[in-house]
Amino acid sequence: MPTSTIGPELQRLIDLLAKMPGLGPRSAKRAALYLLKKREQVMGPLAFALDDAARKVKACETCGNWDSIDPCAVCADGTRDDAILCVVQDVGDLWAMERAGANKGRYHVLGGLLSPLDGVGPDDLNIGGLIDRARGDGVNEVILALAATVDGQTTAHYLAEHLASAGVSVTRLSQGVPIGGELDYLDEGTLTAAMKARRPA
Amino acid sequence: MPTSTIGPELQRLIDLLAKMPGLGPRSAKRAALYLLKKREQVMGPLAFALDDAARKVKACETCGNWDSIDPCAVCADGTRDDAILCVVQDVGDLWAMERAGANKGRYHVLGGLLSPLDGVGPDDLNIGGLIDRARGDGVNEVILALAATVDGQTTAHYLAEHLASAGVSVTRLSQGVPIGGELDYLDEGTLTAAMKARRPA
Repeated sequence: MPTSTIGPELQRLIDLLAKMPGLGPRSAKRAALYLLKKREQVMGPLAFALDDAARKVKACETCGNWDSIDPCAVCADGTRDDAILCVVQDVGDLWAMERAGANKGRYHVLGGLLSPLDGVGPDDLNIGGLIDRARGDGVNEVILALAATVDGQTTAHYLAEHLASAGVSVTRLSQGVPIGGELDYLDEGTLTAAMKARRPA
Repeated sequence: MPTSTIGPELQRLIDLLAKMPGLGPRSAKRAALYLLKKREQVMGPLAFALDDAARKVKACETCGNWDSIDPCAVCADGTRDDAILCVVQDVGDLWAMERAGANKGRYHVLGGLLSPLDGVGPDDLNIGGLIDRARGDGVNEVILALAATVDGQTTAHYLAEHLASAGVSVTRLSQGVPIGGELDYLDEGTLTAAMKARRPA
């Protein structure tokens, strides 16, 4: 398209929208047109919400969950079981576990998976914090709720080894999780079944 | 999901993202997580771009195109053919025409289609402005580039009637087999229209 047709402000907006997962160049244009039509109801509030969340939402220093309070709402929830620590890859997986209601304990967000091919090593993940927590605050069981992928299982194996001296039972989700499946896309029934069938790592 | 897991700032962001076309509740969550990971590169700039575009991008008073200058870049372009006025439903269709390089003339954005069922009448569209332009500024031809739907054809019929006295030739896009289209996959209506409008090979 000739550059003259779409002004620079609009083009920049479209380019940024197109970077979001789920939106391509053409759907970003549709989204921009929609937003311009809903200036008061959606576009203005969205600009504010983005700015507000970018400033206020931080990683919880305890578990790595994203929230505007620290400790986060999950860590601050007194009704949860302190004896159980559920290790997840990222915040999306924490949300998936919560959506399924599959974990009544605490969480620990690793911030990724070990991946030699992508150059992600132990120092790039929040593993030190996990081992401290497993040793420290009355934890009986660490559940490794990681993807059933090569990287996920490599990470689970590494964590199981390094948690061996922490005096906790280390379990992982059962192989009810489909091979190659991402937690965030799983149905609640499968997640719950996999939690129930967890076994020693 | 329990409300406690996702904080209010984050939940509001997800709810607003989910309103955009192409994003549902789950992809809005993925988008929010992506944005929080790309705070400096995407999230902040997007908040600014939304606010900036919401304030600066206006409908061109001449043609209805959206731009941060008025008249818009298309109306201000001196190389375009003033004799041709291409009528489109909305700005997205103007962009589609420009992407195809299909119109070297000017545009007129109606802002919708006549739709008795949805309560959209002539006064809701920019029809008065179209008739003034067709009468006024050296226009020879008005091309009705409207969708081949019931509403699109109703609107084209209405406009053709009201442009009859303007002393311009009124045309509309041809209907037929799309380029690259297999006959076997076409609907009966399109095939019948293409047969009726057949022309010498």
